[in-house]
Amino acid sequence: MTDPLPGERGEVEPVTPPAHGHPSPSFAFTARVRLRNVPGMLGRLTTEVGRVGGDLRAIDMVRVERSDIVRDVTVHAVDAVHAEAIVRALHHIDGVEVLEYSDRTFLAHLGGKITIQPRTPIKTRDDLSMVYTPGVARICMAIAADRARARTLTIKRNCIAIVTDGSAVLGLGNIGPEAALPVMEGKAMLFKEFGDVDAFPICLATQDEDEIVATVQRIAPTFGGIALEDIAAPACFGIEGRLRTSLDIPVFHDDQHGTAVTVTAALISALRVVSKRIEDVRIVVLGIGAAGTACTRLLLTAGARDIVGVDRQGILVRGSQQLKGTTQRWYAAHTNPRHLRGGLAEALAGADVFIGTSGPGLVSREQVASMAELPIVFALANPEPEIRPELIEDLAAVVATGRSDYPNQINNVLTFPGFFRGLLDCGAQRVTDAMKLAAAHAIADIVADSLHPEHIVPSVFNRAVAPAVAAAVRAEAERSGLAHRLPTEQDPLHPPELGVPENS
Amino acid sequence: MTDPLPGERGEVEPVTPPAHGHPSPSFAFTARVRLRNVPGMLGRLTTEVGRVGGDLRAIDMVRVERSDIVRDVTVHAVDAVHAEAIVRALHHIDGVEVLEYSDRTFLAHLGGKITIQPRTPIKTRDDLSMVYTPGVARICMAIAADRARARTLTIKRNCIAIVTDGSAVLGLGNIGPEAALPVMEGKAMLFKEFGDVDAFPICLATQDEDEIVATVQRIAPTFGGIALEDIAAPACFGIEGRLRTSLDIPVFHDDQHGTAVTVTAALISALRVVSKRIEDVRIVVLGIGAAGTACTRLLLTAGARDIVGVDRQGILVRGSQQLKGTTQRWYAAHTNPRHLRGGLAEALAGADVFIGTSGPGLVSREQVASMAELPIVFALANPEPEIRPELIEDLAAVVATGRSDYPNQINNVLTFPGFFRGLLDCGAQRVTDAMKLAAAHAIADIVADSLHPEHIVPSVFNRAVAPAVAAAVRAEAERSGLAHRLPTEQDPLHPPELGVPENS
Repeated sequence: MTDPLPGERGEVEPVTPPAHGHPSPSFAFTARVRLRNVPGMLGRLTTEVGRVGGDLRAIDMVRVERSDIVRDVTVHAVDAVHAEAIVRALHHIDGVEVLEYSDRTFLAHLGGKITIQPRTPIKTRDDLSMVYTPGVARICMAIAADRARARTLTIKRNCIAIVTDGSAVLGLGNIGPEAALPVMEGKAMLFKEFGDVDAFPICLATQDEDEIVATVQRIAPTFGGIALEDIAAPACFGIEGRLRTSLDIPVFHDDQHGTAVTVTAALISALRVVSKRIEDVRIVVLGIGAAGTACTRLLLTAGARDIVGVDRQGILVRGSQQLKGTTQRWYAAHTNPRHLRGGLAEALAGADVFIGTSGPGLVSREQVASMAELPIVFALANPEPEIRPELIEDLAAVVATGRSDYPNQINNVLTFPGFFRGLLDCGAQRVTDAMKLAAAHAIADIVADSLHPEHIVPSVFNRAVAPAVAAAVRAEAERSGLAHRLPTEQDPLHPPELGVPENS
Repeated sequence: MTDPLPGERGEVEPVTPPAHGHPSPSFAFTARVRLRNVPGMLGRLTTEVGRVGGDLRAIDMVRVERSDIVRDVTVHAVDAVHAEAIVRALHHIDGVEVLEYSDRTFLAHLGGKITIQPRTPIKTRDDLSMVYTPGVARICMAIAADRARARTLTIKRNCIAIVTDGSAVLGLGNIGPEAALPVMEGKAMLFKEFGDVDAFPICLATQDEDEIVATVQRIAPTFGGIALEDIAAPACFGIEGRLRTSLDIPVFHDDQHGTAVTVTAALISALRVVSKRIEDVRIVVLGIGAAGTACTRLLLTAGARDIVGVDRQGILVRGSQQLKGTTQRWYAAHTNPRHLRGGLAEALAGADVFIGTSGPGLVSREQVASMAELPIVFALANPEPEIRPELIEDLAAVVATGRSDYPNQINNVLTFPGFFRGLLDCGAQRVTDAMKLAAAHAIADIVADSLHPEHIVPSVFNRAVAPAVAAAVRAEAERSGLAHRLPTEQDPLHPPELGVPENS
């Protein structure tokens, strides 16, 4: 490197450490720096770290170069902004070059993104004897006498597991359980932020269907629900099906049903925009994996009568030799009533709705032009949609994607926090299609008064969504007799040994 | 019931709902009330609930009696004190009798005792894109490239699982996973309160050793350590041993090692009180289960040379036909150097130290009187010790129990929060006897300056304990090369794609 002239990098900006808070490992960062190999350089660096309020924790040698030394410097800062300010201050030292450093997104992940907190403090002997021994023994015995009391007296009331095997994470593919954990932590944050649901990530060191099922069955006692996440098809179908029938808590694979509810909500709105009825429209689904299958199933429940599924081998046709597995056979048996054959082009000609859960750039402008009047295009492949909205803005009546940088983002966060909030609140032991449909209508109804081709779903930050979804799920559970009201004659709040009030 | 005369229950005390806060499900309670069967009674009750600031949520019929009706009334209160005030107010209504209600300990458990919180808020699109898609994908790929980065960039950094099968919970026995959950939640609170460790309870719906091992192996990716809890002997030995050798995170069965560390700490102190050396004393251990075995092993590591184990069949003797399983054979092979035979009486005659991890009242005053001068008696059976301290206050030099209502409470909470704090901070992948011994010395050293026969261990609320234990574990890990320093040339903070600072 060429040494910069003094002042070449501009004036050193004043760095004032935040007035409140102390440097902590939560905001540790490591900067890789190249130091001119002259006496006193390291001292100048360490002095500068101290001057700007950083807590220097470690200096590690990386390598010696011709006239420089490369070192890693680990510093605790007060917060992320402070950390960046320290890095800039180091970079301004004459003879120091910051080669790279852990950045803001990485800083946001340091140490993980969720924490487990006591709901009440343990400060006194009285606290301790109530939440731990000896008081806790009474709670244990009450639950031992009636296991159902765990729903009231433990975290089972509000806690779900987010379970993944890391086999189909985002669009990243099979990256394994450790690499999937940041996504599951992010999902746990969303569950809490929008649904006040305590969600804990369980990333499994197996991708064997039998082992996944057995493991979830064995850890189930702690949880009031299971959110399956990012498990590849077709294993996800068998896993969900077996857990649904063997567990007494609700099981919900978000990649299937979260997507299906959100897509159905968006389609209800989009059909309102173009004044068509779901019973009348021709719908094409491209990509018959977990999401495409679940969307189709829910749209059929919602009243759709003409859905054509297209996968790699083309249109799924009843009785075809090319159908793979029970899911594709189910699909073909319940769709394509006009017995279309061919590929995407044949399917899309005259269609009213396109729903893509497939891959980037698979749809052409010509294909959209071949659709019926006022076509609806949901190009949900992420991050690169089946067709870019700007290519069809003159053709399509409504366009939605999975991206946040276009209008109409189809984001499952509209569904899953409120859906589980509703399930936990009514104690429902299973999820029904009617609940999903009720949730979809609830989401669609939120934007019903402000409907616009570019506003068919609420913003993910609309705080009205989750409560509305939860209420819809609860109401449907009550309607269908699946709600489990807690105060009954076998009330879990009434362990036998409870006495009358002391002050009576 | 006989109706009380007006005023018989005294004046109605004024109930003022707390000025801050709203009634919430966290402080829901249900009162079972007997109402005189006359018109307007229910109205008087509901009016009273509202008057004192309660939020009436449900009224359920329980039964109709001759001239009364029994109902369950579910109310949301602002806090536990408010809930009790409401119950008293109901009881004061003429014609209303509160038969029972969910009490304060139950209220403290309603909805569970721990919660999962985001470490940063998700309020803006920028927050969302950093902690979830699309930003999170970079973190996932960095971990996919090097699994070890999960230790830095996910909750694995600070999160452990508290795993139980509910087979030996407190002194309650085999009560199953749901009934064990309140204890595990309490333990999670203690981990956080004293060690700042995020601990999550996993209660298993199996008591099969192979299934427990397989399940823990499969859920391990999320966790930086495994705390085994309340698993019955001898299964606990096999489970811990197999997990120790198969996992790359530390595994620690608290009933064994937490007890062993705490007992060893107490014994170090007690021997200081009576000026004896551990190498010289004769020690008797009664109850050779998980705790007794682990205590013996650690005391041998600490230098003890004469330990005699006594179980139901009497003194464990090398080569005896009565020895059951590998654990008892190991025990007999490493203890009883004087080849004593017989029962507890034979073992205790002339002994310096008694350590009981057995059952209530198994030791007599005469047996303590037969011990050597200045005997040390640790009667740890809970809640009822092997002998009550007041029965031997004139005989024993030092007495300790597991109870909080006597001096010298041997409580594992002195050990486990700090121990795991230390393990997580140094990234140690396994637990060694040297670490346990270092922790015991750290605990003992805290009371070294204030030593007294009734103060051989610190209070469980002494905030100096956990940091001292953590420091001792870290130091021993570093000494023995088991510490895993994070900033190295393969620094997990340095994913390859990191750029230079924006402002450079």
